[in-house]
Amino acid sequence: MTKIITIAIDAMGGENAPKKNIQGLKIFLDKNKKNNDFLIHLYGDKNILEKEIASLKISRKLIKIIHAEGTVSDEESPMTAVKNSKNTSMWNSVQAQINGGADISLSAGNTGVLLVISRMILKMMKDVSKPALAGLWPSKKGMSVVLDLGANIECDEKNLIDFSEMGAALFKSIFPNQKPYVSLLNIGSEQIKGTEILKKTYSKLKDLSNENNFIFNGYIEGNKIMEGDSNVIVTDGFTGNIALKTAEGTAKFLIDNLKNSLSENIFSKFSVIFSYFSLKKFKSKLDPRKYNGAIFLGLNGPVVKSHGGTDPIGFYYSIDLCYKIIKGNLMGQIKSNLNHLDVKE
Amino acid sequence: MTKIITIAIDAMGGENAPKKNIQGLKIFLDKNKKNNDFLIHLYGDKNILEKEIASLKISRKLIKIIHAEGTVSDEESPMTAVKNSKNTSMWNSVQAQINGGADISLSAGNTGVLLVISRMILKMMKDVSKPALAGLWPSKKGMSVVLDLGANIECDEKNLIDFSEMGAALFKSIFPNQKPYVSLLNIGSEQIKGTEILKKTYSKLKDLSNENNFIFNGYIEGNKIMEGDSNVIVTDGFTGNIALKTAEGTAKFLIDNLKNSLSENIFSKFSVIFSYFSLKKFKSKLDPRKYNGAIFLGLNGPVVKSHGGTDPIGFYYSIDLCYKIIKGNLMGQIKSNLNHLDVKE
Repeated sequence: MTKIITIAIDAMGGENAPKKNIQGLKIFLDKNKKNNDFLIHLYGDKNILEKEIASLKISRKLIKIIHAEGTVSDEESPMTAVKNSKNTSMWNSVQAQINGGADISLSAGNTGVLLVISRMILKMMKDVSKPALAGLWPSKKGMSVVLDLGANIECDEKNLIDFSEMGAALFKSIFPNQKPYVSLLNIGSEQIKGTEILKKTYSKLKDLSNENNFIFNGYIEGNKIMEGDSNVIVTDGFTGNIALKTAEGTAKFLIDNLKNSLSENIFSKFSVIFSYFSLKKFKSKLDPRKYNGAIFLGLNGPVVKSHGGTDPIGFYYSIDLCYKIIKGNLMGQIKSNLNHLDVKE
Repeated sequence: MTKIITIAIDAMGGENAPKKNIQGLKIFLDKNKKNNDFLIHLYGDKNILEKEIASLKISRKLIKIIHAEGTVSDEESPMTAVKNSKNTSMWNSVQAQINGGADISLSAGNTGVLLVISRMILKMMKDVSKPALAGLWPSKKGMSVVLDLGANIECDEKNLIDFSEMGAALFKSIFPNQKPYVSLLNIGSEQIKGTEILKKTYSKLKDLSNENNFIFNGYIEGNKIMEGDSNVIVTDGFTGNIALKTAEGTAKFLIDNLKNSLSENIFSKFSVIFSYFSLKKFKSKLDPRKYNGAIFLGLNGPVVKSHGGTDPIGFYYSIDLCYKIIKGNLMGQIKSNLNHLDVKE
């Protein structure tokens, strides 16, 4: 008997929702025609969703629509979210893990509110004191997991060790055939470098390192993140957020400059014809939509946040991420990794 | 009467020294044939330097060689540097500001040792408690100054305010026709975001902001550093170092991928012919050698650190940076900015 994976989607969250979300779902269904081990639960305005689904001629076989009245606005503050967002499509898609049989929740709505709601509904895992926001990052050797990307601006060694265990579990669930190599982001690679918190975390992770859970690769500097020798990069949410956004800004700056250069005169414009397929492949490999989807870790259930401004293809990738995570048994992997922590202590 | 700018150069520091250093000097002299407002003092092995200069047929008119016996090795630790590096070319080129009439010192040698030696010899400026390492960063609108890039892993609000004042002074000295716009690097742009230290610094900088010294632009996120709306980006040395290296790594990753794409088949290779000049311009604009030279700020005299692995062109840019900094009266600008701090308090 196959276990059925149930993905609860906030169909109303993000720019151009629900159109974008339903179009993304169609791509997912088309790509998974041969798989019948999943169900999609869509939370949102029943009438609107029925119409969208009908207009795209999507089969209803694997889809269930659950009506939800309201939507969380982008302006809603995390402070007042709990009061104002009950019974919205976002709230109910997270609540679905408690009483709707869902294994995972996905939203492209307001990040701060999603984090607060998720924590409130799903609660922290036993022995984990802070949740982390993990993301995918391209590297020479494939993809890496980086966390925390902004959930906690200050972290102690206990948090960083939790993040290492959870990040390694996430990596294993998405890439079941690869081993997780954990590194701590720092300003040098020698053991004596960095803050006191990093030094304590370093020696603890060295003790915890083993073939079954993760191999600790020591410190990593910012310029080595994309080398891929380590595939789980651990840092506090302040540093992680700065690193992520600086990388985004640098990539944008370079690509914009390249575009300008290649369109500045008739010769360079002409050259684009010859390099069209190569440039297309270059663009495709680095397509940010492929990395769409940040994962909240540390709660009693996984929640994925899609970028609000992404398009149907980006939203498809975040559904696919949910599917992979559950198929790879994320929660089991996390529990097993955290147990390993107990045994060692 | 023109003031003569004296630049003390550690001729023996860095990879391929002193050849690289002297070749870089030759480029500087060639580009400044019309200027006679500077002198170069070269510190290092007199015999070797005499030979290098003669072999490149460099005029001795603006150059003085001061013999120094030893060289600081790359393996020297900052801990033992003070004991081991006395009378080396590096030590003497910094000491030159005390008793050799030099206005600024330049070395491509061991960074940690240079920082320790400089601090020991030049001492901290009155009222500045921590020195900062500042660098140049390309942006859409030209160049920005970013600091601290790694001198201090932990900073309080007093340090960050000093860095803002000194960074703005540095910007004004290098770009005398532009106004400095200071921003604090943070994980959001709203006033309530970030650590307590950042919030305190924010409100202090808001009070200090004025047309004469610098305009405070609030918080900036990592993805906006290269937009250029702010041209002085202030952060602690841990975050600054991670941001700098992550940007370097991202740029390398993209350029490597682009190169592979453009050489993968005959068509794309062919395209490079047509885009040759555009790609060359693209490369030139982003040439890291143009940003070579980190500046130690907060000491009673400026010290510039060139990248150890740079080539003659990169070393030329760091000599040029020294020249510009003194011509733009860096130390006077810093003192005036720090005074403005006193008046306000």
